[in-house]
Amino acid sequence: MRIEIICTGDEVLTGKIVNTNFGYMSQKLEDVGLSVQWETTVGDDRESLLLAFQLAGARADAVIVNGGLGPTVDDLSQEIAAQAAGVELVLHEEWLRRMEEFFHRRSRVMPPNNRKQAMLPATAELLDNPVGTACGFALDIGKARFFFTPGVPRELRRMLEEQIIPRLLARSGEQTAIFLKRFHSYGLGESHVDSLLTGVEELVPDGSVKLGFRAHYPQLETKLAARGVDMDDIRRKLEPVEREVRKRLGNFILGEDEQTLEGVVLGALAGRHGSLCLVETFTSGQIAARLAHLPSAAGIFRRGVVAPTLDEVWGTVGLPKDASAGAFTVEIAEAVAEAARRQAGATHALAVLVDLDEGADRIDLGGTICLAIATADKVASRRSRIVGGREWVRLGAVELGLDCLRRFLQDLPVYERIDFERA
Amino acid sequence: MRIEIICTGDEVLTGKIVNTNFGYMSQKLEDVGLSVQWETTVGDDRESLLLAFQLAGARADAVIVNGGLGPTVDDLSQEIAAQAAGVELVLHEEWLRRMEEFFHRRSRVMPPNNRKQAMLPATAELLDNPVGTACGFALDIGKARFFFTPGVPRELRRMLEEQIIPRLLARSGEQTAIFLKRFHSYGLGESHVDSLLTGVEELVPDGSVKLGFRAHYPQLETKLAARGVDMDDIRRKLEPVEREVRKRLGNFILGEDEQTLEGVVLGALAGRHGSLCLVETFTSGQIAARLAHLPSAAGIFRRGVVAPTLDEVWGTVGLPKDASAGAFTVEIAEAVAEAARRQAGATHALAVLVDLDEGADRIDLGGTICLAIATADKVASRRSRIVGGREWVRLGAVELGLDCLRRFLQDLPVYERIDFERA
Repeated sequence: MRIEIICTGDEVLTGKIVNTNFGYMSQKLEDVGLSVQWETTVGDDRESLLLAFQLAGARADAVIVNGGLGPTVDDLSQEIAAQAAGVELVLHEEWLRRMEEFFHRRSRVMPPNNRKQAMLPATAELLDNPVGTACGFALDIGKARFFFTPGVPRELRRMLEEQIIPRLLARSGEQTAIFLKRFHSYGLGESHVDSLLTGVEELVPDGSVKLGFRAHYPQLETKLAARGVDMDDIRRKLEPVEREVRKRLGNFILGEDEQTLEGVVLGALAGRHGSLCLVETFTSGQIAARLAHLPSAAGIFRRGVVAPTLDEVWGTVGLPKDASAGAFTVEIAEAVAEAARRQAGATHALAVLVDLDEGADRIDLGGTICLAIATADKVASRRSRIVGGREWVRLGAVELGLDCLRRFLQDLPVYERIDFERA
Repeated sequence: MRIEIICTGDEVLTGKIVNTNFGYMSQKLEDVGLSVQWETTVGDDRESLLLAFQLAGARADAVIVNGGLGPTVDDLSQEIAAQAAGVELVLHEEWLRRMEEFFHRRSRVMPPNNRKQAMLPATAELLDNPVGTACGFALDIGKARFFFTPGVPRELRRMLEEQIIPRLLARSGEQTAIFLKRFHSYGLGESHVDSLLTGVEELVPDGSVKLGFRAHYPQLETKLAARGVDMDDIRRKLEPVEREVRKRLGNFILGEDEQTLEGVVLGALAGRHGSLCLVETFTSGQIAARLAHLPSAAGIFRRGVVAPTLDEVWGTVGLPKDASAGAFTVEIAEAVAEAARRQAGATHALAVLVDLDEGADRIDLGGTICLAIATADKVASRRSRIVGGREWVRLGAVELGLDCLRRFLQDLPVYERIDFERA
């Protein structure tokens, strides 16, 4: 099945807003085994919209159009859809009623121009929007089924998942259930993981499990898209593959599905009634910013301190100034973590100290990271060198710190060589 | 002049990587008074590429193609460009020599497959790439001039600015100089600024100054795109408009052109040999993360502390626990800032305390912000309420804190009502 996407709107076309909807839609379709072949962006312009609809309608089997369903005069999707399909716009009484209710529940009167949002092409099938006033709709233009969606991301996302993907799967003839299993890892690059996982798809000989990746440095997402007649069938097929992925990626897997690194760390601390304090240098608050604001950090996150130099770090955690002696070692990181833990009265402390190379930012600028984790009776530490410019080192140090804390809390070795570090 | 952009590559089409190049190109063209009318994204697929080139060549005057110039087999731009133009691929000896030098300077031998990057359509005009091995090129397909550019953002950016925009301006018949003047503000919404600036374009009666905006919450960028015969002419035209914009937006302007809020704050502190410490609660390190890692923060940023509750804040800055008494007031913020400043031995302290509403995240969840700035002999404070969900409150509190510090350092009133706060 050939699928195209058309994004509309002057703000997207002029680059005034970044088009995140397209990538989201394309990924969601990939996740269920469908592929987008062509994407077009046009502005709020009658001639361009009509041409885009006609061209896609002549090429594709299914087209998703995003945007242009709002109440203002520059929202043209319904009007041009009707023109391209050769039908009239008619008032959809049911949707008008829904909109009036929508405003009523918010103690507001519906402005007259919202009525426009209930004007749909005569042949349109309504696609429900439970979270906004722009209803979606589907109709045929040329040889393709068109699905019109709102530009507001949360409205689009819900409509895509609940209304459009099931219809696309039905049209594609795949009357099967689909499930996406995800593993999140830190420390291994995409090509390394790809080679580690060679052959795992073949554990299910009928080809119904497909391996994919999504790299967002420093983390990597490994995806298993599985098809089956129902969820039981899918679970049965996935089980040996999941087991093999867990075995091969081992300690590098930091979470699965909706889990996040910060969520796993906070969960492990909560499980032992623990509390956490942080010491940062060059990461400058980014480690704290990853978890301290989360609802699940309440009662666990105790204190974070940021200081630019080792000297300032001593002062901040209450160590004598001469403890430094200019050295930059894991022993120093351990002393800082232990002092910070005592000072904050936390069960756990993470100290991430970075010695950044001198000079202007450049691709081969690196940083040496000494980090330590301390509890009342145990301390673990690790040294690492990351090269790739200031921002690369900073992101890497944040992730390395949080992931070592995760390993410590899960009784895994804090030191295991990662692909992003230099010898 | 009708301009189209074609983005190529499976990773962009499948949403595996977010296409930031398109928005960048479109904005850069808007900034010089050129507009993109149509954008197409296709994968690394011969048939799609050829059709996309033919369609755009039949519609447009100029087309920018991004991506597909790499050394691997899935990089097809040169091959399909030659096919669409009806010419052969020929070896560009000069570029081959440049590539060999490129590798030689890095003490590496050029891999054989890089030779492919010097194979250009026979009619192509070379577009220099001083920072990579993918040269750009221009040629005619249909009625349009095509410009082929590399997918690596920093290579694209340089080629667009140095090679392509001058050629587009020459083709558009606008043989004039172009300059973009930018103002950055915080606290006023786009429509508010738009109405405040009504009529400023008319201060230059020939229409050569055009007003535009780019909102990226919490900041707003106000842009004046000016044309003239040369830069002297442009400066003369812009001068009264700039003066008027500064007058009307007043204290809300936090910087101009390349200036950033954090850079202005650090610059003002450096100018008075000052130093800074920070106290944060719900912003959880994000204020520190905005400035502490910058090269210009060296010697100025002294210390940042993050604590989740007022009780933890007291302990961290060395105040007695009973100072709280459960109250959440600007007086408390002032006491915290003064204590933190003394403790860190800094000339300036900024304390940003947030009292977040109870309950699950939702669009009408708000936070009350009490912030204070202290020096040895002066203290200023401000209370504000921001509504819009956890992340919205967090971003707003970070920006409000930094902007109030900017105002304090510039001897401007720390309190001035902003559009984002509730009464």
